[in-house]
Amino acid sequence: MDTLHSLETPAVVIDLDKLRRNLARAQSAADAAGLALRPHIKTHKSLRLAQEQIARGAVGVTCQKLAEAEVMADGGIDDILLTYNILGAAKLARLRALADRCRLAVTCDSAAVAEGYRQVMAGADRPLSVLVECDTGMGRCGVQTPEAALDLARVLEAAPGLRFGGLMTYPAAGGVQASRDWLARAVALLSDHGLPPRIVTTGGTPDIWDAMQPGIVTEYRPGTYIYMDRSQIAAGACTSEECALQVLATVVSTPAPGRAVIDAGSKTLTSDAMGLEGFGFLPDHPEARIVTLSEEHGVMDVSRCAVPPELGARVRIIPNHACPVSNLFDTVWLLDPEGGATPLRVDARGCVT
Amino acid sequence: MDTLHSLETPAVVIDLDKLRRNLARAQSAADAAGLALRPHIKTHKSLRLAQEQIARGAVGVTCQKLAEAEVMADGGIDDILLTYNILGAAKLARLRALADRCRLAVTCDSAAVAEGYRQVMAGADRPLSVLVECDTGMGRCGVQTPEAALDLARVLEAAPGLRFGGLMTYPAAGGVQASRDWLARAVALLSDHGLPPRIVTTGGTPDIWDAMQPGIVTEYRPGTYIYMDRSQIAAGACTSEECALQVLATVVSTPAPGRAVIDAGSKTLTSDAMGLEGFGFLPDHPEARIVTLSEEHGVMDVSRCAVPPELGARVRIIPNHACPVSNLFDTVWLLDPEGGATPLRVDARGCVT
Repeated sequence: MDTLHSLETPAVVIDLDKLRRNLARAQSAADAAGLALRPHIKTHKSLRLAQEQIARGAVGVTCQKLAEAEVMADGGIDDILLTYNILGAAKLARLRALADRCRLAVTCDSAAVAEGYRQVMAGADRPLSVLVECDTGMGRCGVQTPEAALDLARVLEAAPGLRFGGLMTYPAAGGVQASRDWLARAVALLSDHGLPPRIVTTGGTPDIWDAMQPGIVTEYRPGTYIYMDRSQIAAGACTSEECALQVLATVVSTPAPGRAVIDAGSKTLTSDAMGLEGFGFLPDHPEARIVTLSEEHGVMDVSRCAVPPELGARVRIIPNHACPVSNLFDTVWLLDPEGGATPLRVDARGCVT
Repeated sequence: MDTLHSLETPAVVIDLDKLRRNLARAQSAADAAGLALRPHIKTHKSLRLAQEQIARGAVGVTCQKLAEAEVMADGGIDDILLTYNILGAAKLARLRALADRCRLAVTCDSAAVAEGYRQVMAGADRPLSVLVECDTGMGRCGVQTPEAALDLARVLEAAPGLRFGGLMTYPAAGGVQASRDWLARAVALLSDHGLPPRIVTTGGTPDIWDAMQPGIVTEYRPGTYIYMDRSQIAAGACTSEECALQVLATVVSTPAPGRAVIDAGSKTLTSDAMGLEGFGFLPDHPEARIVTLSEEHGVMDVSRCAVPPELGARVRIIPNHACPVSNLFDTVWLLDPEGGATPLRVDARGCVT
């Protein structure tokens, strides 16, 4: 039986109690607001955890890669929203195969992408639901105006094999209200033209507790909320006590006063800064700062620690960003309240295409 | 038969001709300087490429993780330097097992770490070669002074089952001369006390062409030189034409004038900034800038491109840092001059422990 104490480091450990509280809180908030919850699996990339989310009331999952959606469908998840423009013959063929075996919806932000969907869905038994991706301030993909959303909705609705499924967005940091206003204008315009969107889906853990309100949004797609991380603490979405995912590392060198080096570098914690100083937070040594990372080393300034961690000590780190950490590990460890550690396969790790 | 054209994106593609020229140039430079070349496998994590490096004259390989060294030993590589402090009963047992089946050397920077080696090597047929890691300016691990190197060398030489193998360092950026001076003082001190180091090993691709000179250094451990990357272009170690590793991506959205979004985000390119602006260089669109990454999207500013890449176009990207990109892919593709693409397994991907 593995335990927290027996794990070799670096390891990703997940506190099951905290995870379950995070899931329950978000599901309750979604239920209270009358929103469907459709978790983004990018954070955990695990079939078992996706199934747990659905068992607690989620309507299905969100994926951003075909390969992730294929892993989820292989595992029996039958309601998947793929929030990505799918282009090219090989990927479109995979999209069709996936649509034939589960309830799939996909997004697009241009008529050219929609045309690919139309061609590949020819002859399908049921139409593919396609949501229009809206750039409500993020500056990434998405139609730029509500008028463009209407134009694209019309293209989708007119295309055999497709149907206009609604609107999808991911708001900019700090831009929840602007995003909501954008969507409200688009919903009004679409409704005026006989195309009221059945689904209006948005996402994001940083604003989760404020954003899940009754209104024009029908569905919420948070990802990080299951684990939480240091960037979510900074955003005010959680406390450090609510962070279910932590990296367990060992102090491998204390070469100079005030310096301690751990066996977790960018190959474990990633270089994601998320606007924060340093590369993680140590709840047991809050004064420690992870100041630089190389691939296999994290160099900590422990000069402000009353009791700095010693050579050989194990330390727990809340990473800046939990999602890419999952993607670096084949297996993470679920910690139960009795101290046992059970391996959990990161099923969709490395699903790049 | 796969070709560059048929690969699904994002994909990591390796130009075999460029790779071989990079290997040949470094081996020639090492030979000319009378240095042993011991490539760091962190960049490619591939048995086949490690074997190619050895076939061209490398004396063995460098690994930074036990798990990487185990993969290399499993594949028949029999001369491995593990440049890491190994601590803890489980890892020490693995170290002993590895030492029993290949020519292994390891490093340490404290008597406490050396004591772990001494205990686990008790009763071994041959002594374990242990090099003293020296902090010659990097500010990571390593003894802080030549005097401390001498003290630790004495501990190692006196320990049954161990022998003092020499000095190991990785210089700070821009600190090659300071590192060389540090090592010269340490070599003189050790020699004065009857412990001349047989091996003095240093590394780093950024300074490779300047640093490989006859002198007190006996061995060089470059990693990135096999692939090269944008950070090495910036360091003056290569030109963009010499970068053998590129990421192949597709433009999945052109939502607004001057903006093109590719299907390579931080899950492909990593967030490694390496002091550079943006997250990669597009040799076919040198005016394009990858300004922001999310996990699956790269947002490019293409406003300065004479002919911006269109929706659906494939683009080639030289990433800021090649090494962590390899670690995100189970398979990369070797491109031959005829345009064929052969999969290459990244054998030691994800070897975190």
